[in-house]
Amino acid sequence: MRLRLDLAYDGTDFNGWARQPTLRTVQDSLEAALALVLRSHYVHVTCAGRTDAGVHARGQVVHVDVDEDALEALATRGTSTPVMALQRRLNGVLGKDVRILHSSVAADGFDARYSAMWRRYAYRIADAPHLLDPLRRHEVLAWGRPLDLDAMNEAATRLKGRHDFAAFCRKRAGATTIRTLLELHWSRDESGIAVALVRADAFCHTMVRSLVGCMLPVGEGRLSPAWAREVLDRGERDAEVTVVQARGLTLEEVRYPPDGELAGWARAARAKRSMAGQAIVDG
Amino acid sequence: MRLRLDLAYDGTDFNGWARQPTLRTVQDSLEAALALVLRSHYVHVTCAGRTDAGVHARGQVVHVDVDEDALEALATRGTSTPVMALQRRLNGVLGKDVRILHSSVAADGFDARYSAMWRRYAYRIADAPHLLDPLRRHEVLAWGRPLDLDAMNEAATRLKGRHDFAAFCRKRAGATTIRTLLELHWSRDESGIAVALVRADAFCHTMVRSLVGCMLPVGEGRLSPAWAREVLDRGERDAEVTVVQARGLTLEEVRYPPDGELAGWARAARAKRSMAGQAIVDG
Repeated sequence: MRLRLDLAYDGTDFNGWARQPTLRTVQDSLEAALALVLRSHYVHVTCAGRTDAGVHARGQVVHVDVDEDALEALATRGTSTPVMALQRRLNGVLGKDVRILHSSVAADGFDARYSAMWRRYAYRIADAPHLLDPLRRHEVLAWGRPLDLDAMNEAATRLKGRHDFAAFCRKRAGATTIRTLLELHWSRDESGIAVALVRADAFCHTMVRSLVGCMLPVGEGRLSPAWAREVLDRGERDAEVTVVQARGLTLEEVRYPPDGELAGWARAARAKRSMAGQAIVDG
Repeated sequence: MRLRLDLAYDGTDFNGWARQPTLRTVQDSLEAALALVLRSHYVHVTCAGRTDAGVHARGQVVHVDVDEDALEALATRGTSTPVMALQRRLNGVLGKDVRILHSSVAADGFDARYSAMWRRYAYRIADAPHLLDPLRRHEVLAWGRPLDLDAMNEAATRLKGRHDFAAFCRKRAGATTIRTLLELHWSRDESGIAVALVRADAFCHTMVRSLVGCMLPVGEGRLSPAWAREVLDRGERDAEVTVVQARGLTLEEVRYPPDGELAGWARAARAKRSMAGQAIVDG
């Protein structure tokens, strides 16, 4: 039986999503909690976006295949459904910096990674001293100079669309760096913090943080919006483009098609990726 | 020369505002930073609301009297004003969990404590599993049962106004517990978290957290809105009223009258309080 879990985490004290031998990661914590609660030797979860060390999530989605008897056994003493009982037990076992927000039996054909239509990230920057809210310091980058969001949005417009984002990706052998950047826009939230909304079919490694790093010198007025497009077109990493800190980055949402289209969408995504002979990183 | 500093802090790792011999407090950190930056042996700051251990602030206000020569000396090498230089230096010395957001030369007659017209606090509660955002866990109370904000607002309406809040205050010899509760209202923020807006001329010790603790059983449907008023009228602490955890509480704003009225307001506040033979706690 396949379950869908929606989760949120404060990435500060995690070494990213993916399991590593000796480090604390979100995947590792979640799999250990599932194994404990379900009394299973091994549980494997698949996520929509493999976040790097220090990156946060409010809308991470995973699927996990569980033994139906083990799940049913959880609800024998309560009045809630087995899935609700599982969520409550998991949240009791997990550290406070990761929470299961929703849990459900997955629709037929659901695959957290391959069924996803798009991923949406936010990058947050406090670019003035009065915006430095200590309660948000773990999820907002402090920046010493004021940013011109209009200029950054001019650059953003030139980066949107289907391109080879090699200039903004860490190279991986045999992996394509072609992605469709559906949305890239800066605005200020109600407190005045600058927020980039970044949405794409999928992302390659360090892509969001490199895109932000490319727009920062534009926002400071040191480089022109046209320069950002030149970097994209050259297709090579540029010394002016830094990979900004992980702390400002949050995976906010993953969107899936209607239930009837899940399996078809996953088949198409798998075929497209295998044709390209590639291993796409989705987050 | 008197300065006004507006500051914010994450109260999680502070033992409250007020200086204590061996514990880390906000007052202690700020006074030590001022002494270091101004090369002074002793600096004393006065705040608008003395917050308890674990309580946060986004709008704390303090005044501090500094030596004008020591202040002028800070700006000799830069182009910014001495006050801006002081703020930058203080933020460089202070821990990341406390930030000076604004700094200015105080208007004549300004007293952070006695000139204040009112203080506004927020208390935040996540009363459903899907509201448990790990990135906000330090400033939001997790509550296991759903709350009916309409019922809580019915109770709130009956608590507003000028009353003796003895039922909601920790007793102090010779201190009055009469306060004017100007605003008390629950609503949900954009994410769905329940937020109490609590505004009064001044607060006595544990007053906000006791008021919230009184409305919780009403929100759960265990007790009626009328009961909350009965507690107020009895004027004695009630076993059903708990002092809720500090983590959900944030001092959001302190409001002062126009500059020309600052001194008069402070004189009136001092006179009122000394007539009552009391030591009012303002936070």
